[in-house]
Amino acid sequence: MLYFCIINQTDMESSIASKEFLFGEEIQWEVVGEGVKRKILAFDNRVMLVNVYFETGAIGALHEHYHTQVTYVAKGRFDVTINGVTKMLKEGDSFYIPPHAIHGVLCVEEGMLTDVFSPMREDFIK
Amino acid sequence: MLYFCIINQTDMESSIASKEFLFGEEIQWEVVGEGVKRKILAFDNRVMLVNVYFETGAIGALHEHYHTQVTYVAKGRFDVTINGVTKMLKEGDSFYIPPHAIHGVLCVEEGMLTDVFSPMREDFIK
Repeated sequence: MLYFCIINQTDMESSIASKEFLFGEEIQWEVVGEGVKRKILAFDNRVMLVNVYFETGAIGALHEHYHTQVTYVAKGRFDVTINGVTKMLKEGDSFYIPPHAIHGVLCVEEGMLTDVFSPMREDFIK
Repeated sequence: MLYFCIINQTDMESSIASKEFLFGEEIQWEVVGEGVKRKILAFDNRVMLVNVYFETGAIGALHEHYHTQVTYVAKGRFDVTINGVTKMLKEGDSFYIPPHAIHGVLCVEEGMLTDVFSPMREDFIK
């Protein structure tokens, strides 16, 4: 499967994007940690949509990046820590991580986060 | 409820953002069409996360905008049209709408789309 394409090699600002229609069943889960796996969904250079599944007890360790992150809690319960403040979020909740804010999650009840990064996470598709 | 805050009035590039933790139950649905309602979730100037609920048969009419849009089908089934091509997408699928691409949806089975826009939709919070 051609997963992404180069739209215009001379214009790096708009050079990369996913296909327009992406079927979840055609995208393999990628194991990224103990009890954690992800699927990269639609993206271009500006923004990237990523589903991350967590087993109960799985951890997204504290880290930071220059990207803005917004996340929707699609399923389950998570203790979410942003800049030293922790709150429990469940399905229907969301959170905003400013650039360089230190953040992490602990999965309290099996579930899935829909993570969004802006700009895209180039490191995810290397 | 203070829904958003001005971080730095002298720097428009980073001037607006949602709160860091957003509880879905505290955000009211906004009716935006017949059988269509939305909740604006986490955002800053770079990116905005929006849940849009559709009743069966509800329509998101064809339109275009300069923002990149990436959308996750969180629930239900939708006929999604992008630049004249229509495919049926269901829970777990996603789609990418390049800037200015003409797009719309028809809800085939009651559900919810998690829409992401980059940059943010300033018109949504006026």
